[in-house]
Amino acid sequence: MQSKIFLVLLAKIFDMDSLDTLKLQFETFLEQQIPDKNPENLYAPLKYVLRNGGKRIRPLLVLLSAKSFGATVENALPAAATIETFHNFTLIHDDIMDKAPIRRGQPTVHEKWDENLAILSGDTMLIWAYKMLEQYDGKTYKALTTLLNQTAIEVCEGQQMDMDFEQRNDVSLTEYLEMIRLKTAVLLGAALSFGGIVANADEKNLSNISRFGINLGIAFQIQDDYLDTYGNVSNFGKQIGGDIIDRKKTFLYISALQTADAKDKNNLLDLYENKQIDNAELIDKTIAVFDKYDVQTIAKQQIDNYTQKSLDYLNATDFTDKEKVFWKNFALQLMHREY
Amino acid sequence: MQSKIFLVLLAKIFDMDSLDTLKLQFETFLEQQIPDKNPENLYAPLKYVLRNGGKRIRPLLVLLSAKSFGATVENALPAAATIETFHNFTLIHDDIMDKAPIRRGQPTVHEKWDENLAILSGDTMLIWAYKMLEQYDGKTYKALTTLLNQTAIEVCEGQQMDMDFEQRNDVSLTEYLEMIRLKTAVLLGAALSFGGIVANADEKNLSNISRFGINLGIAFQIQDDYLDTYGNVSNFGKQIGGDIIDRKKTFLYISALQTADAKDKNNLLDLYENKQIDNAELIDKTIAVFDKYDVQTIAKQQIDNYTQKSLDYLNATDFTDKEKVFWKNFALQLMHREY
Repeated sequence: MQSKIFLVLLAKIFDMDSLDTLKLQFETFLEQQIPDKNPENLYAPLKYVLRNGGKRIRPLLVLLSAKSFGATVENALPAAATIETFHNFTLIHDDIMDKAPIRRGQPTVHEKWDENLAILSGDTMLIWAYKMLEQYDGKTYKALTTLLNQTAIEVCEGQQMDMDFEQRNDVSLTEYLEMIRLKTAVLLGAALSFGGIVANADEKNLSNISRFGINLGIAFQIQDDYLDTYGNVSNFGKQIGGDIIDRKKTFLYISALQTADAKDKNNLLDLYENKQIDNAELIDKTIAVFDKYDVQTIAKQQIDNYTQKSLDYLNATDFTDKEKVFWKNFALQLMHREY
Repeated sequence: MQSKIFLVLLAKIFDMDSLDTLKLQFETFLEQQIPDKNPENLYAPLKYVLRNGGKRIRPLLVLLSAKSFGATVENALPAAATIETFHNFTLIHDDIMDKAPIRRGQPTVHEKWDENLAILSGDTMLIWAYKMLEQYDGKTYKALTTLLNQTAIEVCEGQQMDMDFEQRNDVSLTEYLEMIRLKTAVLLGAALSFGGIVANADEKNLSNISRFGINLGIAFQIQDDYLDTYGNVSNFGKQIGGDIIDRKKTFLYISALQTADAKDKNNLLDLYENKQIDNAELIDKTIAVFDKYDVQTIAKQQIDNYTQKSLDYLNATDFTDKEKVFWKNFALQLMHREY
C-alpha cells in the first residue's frame, strides 16, 4: 500500500492546513496513549514503532469518516489510535515473517532488537489496540471490539494466504483477489466503519462505507501491481519492475499464468525460478509474456470494476451531497494515477 | 506450573465423577468453538494445540468459581474457553522464544510447522480468545474484555521480565516475585474473576477472589522452585535438581545470591557459568551454598506468607461457609505437598 500517495491526495481535496491540524491532533492524542510502563525492553519497540510515524492514513480515515457521519473528531480519537496501533502490530509481526530489514527508512524491530522482543512487543501492541477501546461504552464499545475481532482475524488470514502463495504456482486470480481483500482492504473498510460506529451510524451506512473502503482498497492494490510494471517512476514513486525482480506473484503475473498457453506458462515459471538471470533481461522477458496476453487490459478492467463498485457503495450511504463529493474526489484522485 | 497436581487435588476435594463431567462439558463446548475455517495452514496449529488437551485447570477454575458465585456452568463456558485459548496462545509464543521442542509430550507448533506459522497462528488464537467473549453483552462483556486486556498485558510483562532476568545476575527477590505474579499468578486470578463476573459478583468479591488466586499462584510457584531442589521424586513428579541443571534463576538461587557473602556469591555465579561441570557435582555444590544460607527457611516463610494471604482474601469473600471450605481445602491440599 503506497500510503504516501493517499496522503498527497487527502491534502489535495481537503485543504492542507486542516489535514495537518488533524494529523497533529491525532499524533498528540496517540502520544498520550503510548504506555509509559516497565519492563523497558517490552515497551521500547512499541514506542519506537508508534513514534516512527508513517503517514497515519488509517487513523485519518477514521477521523474523517467520523466527521462525515456527524461525530466530533475528539470522540473518534481512541478508535483512530486503535486502528493505527493494530496496523503497526501487523507490521512488526509481518516484518519478522518476511525477514524485512527496513521499515519506513529505519531498522525493523527484530533487526534493531531481536525476534523474541519483536514477537512479544507485537503481542503487547495488539492487546494495547484492544485496550484503548475501553474508552467507549455500551453498544459502541461492543460494535468496535467486534469489528476489530473480525478484521484482525481476516488480516491474519490474508497474511497466511500470502505466505501460502509463495509456495504455490497455481494461485487463481480469485484467490489473489481474496488475499488482497483480507490482507489490506478490510482494514481500510474497518477504519471507515470505526468512524461510523463512533457516530452511531446505522447498519446500512456502516455496511456501505465499509464496502466503499474495501473495494477501493482492492482497486488500489491491483493498480499498485499494475504501476510497478507499467507505471513511470515520476508518478509511481518506486523503481519500475521491482515486483518482477522480487519474483512477486502479482495480479499481472497470476493473470498471465492463468491465460498463457502451456509453453509461455512454463517460460514464465522458469523466469521466476532462474536466480542467475540479469534483472533487466528478467524484466524484459517477463513483460513480453505479460504483453502477449494483454494482462494490462485485464488489470485495467478490474481496477475500473472495483473503483466503480466502491463508488456505488458510497452513493448508497446517507451522506450529504457535499460529503459524497468529498469522498468521491478522494477515490477518483486516488485511482487517477496515469496509466 | 505443575497443572497435574492441581487436577489431582480438584479431584480429591470435588468428587471425581463431577469433575470429569465438568471437564467433558468444557471439552465439548471448546470443540464447538474451534474455528472451522481456511486457510488450513493458519487454523491447523490452533486445532492441534487446543485439542492437545492439557489439564484444563484454568477453565475449570472459571467454571467452579462461577458456580460458587451462583451462576450456571453453561453461562460460564465461553469465558472458560477464552481463558484456555488465551493461555494456549501464550504457550505457542513462549515456546518460540524459549526454543522449546516439546509441549505436553508433542512437538511444539514452531517445531511441527515453522516459526512464521507459530507467530501467526498464535496471533489468531489471541484474537479468537477475545472473539469468544462476544457471546456476552453489556456490562458483563465490558468487564470480561477489560480484565482480559489487563491480564494479557501483565502476562506479556512477566514473560519479558523472565527473558530479561536470563541476562542479569542482580535480580532481587522483589523483582522475582513480581515476575512470577505477572507471568503465572494473574491468569489464575483472572480465571477466578471471570467466573465471578459471569455471576455478576460485585467489585469487592471480584477483588477478593482474584487476590485469593494470585497469592495462591505465587505460593505455588515458590513451592515449585522449592520442591525442584528439596522435594522427592514421588511427590514432586519431576527429576530433582532440574532447575539447577538448566541454570534457572529460581527463588532459591536468587535468595542465595542475595544473602551470600562475596565469596559464596561468586562461587554460585561461577557454578552457573560453568558449562563443563558434571550435573551431579553442580547440584551438590549449588545445594551446599543454598544450605549454608538456609534458603529453605526463606522459601518456606514466603510460601506460608502467600498461602495465608490467599486464605485471608478467600475469607473476605461473601461465599457461603460451604464454598469457603471447598476453596480452602483446595488451597491447603494444593500447598501440602511434603517438605
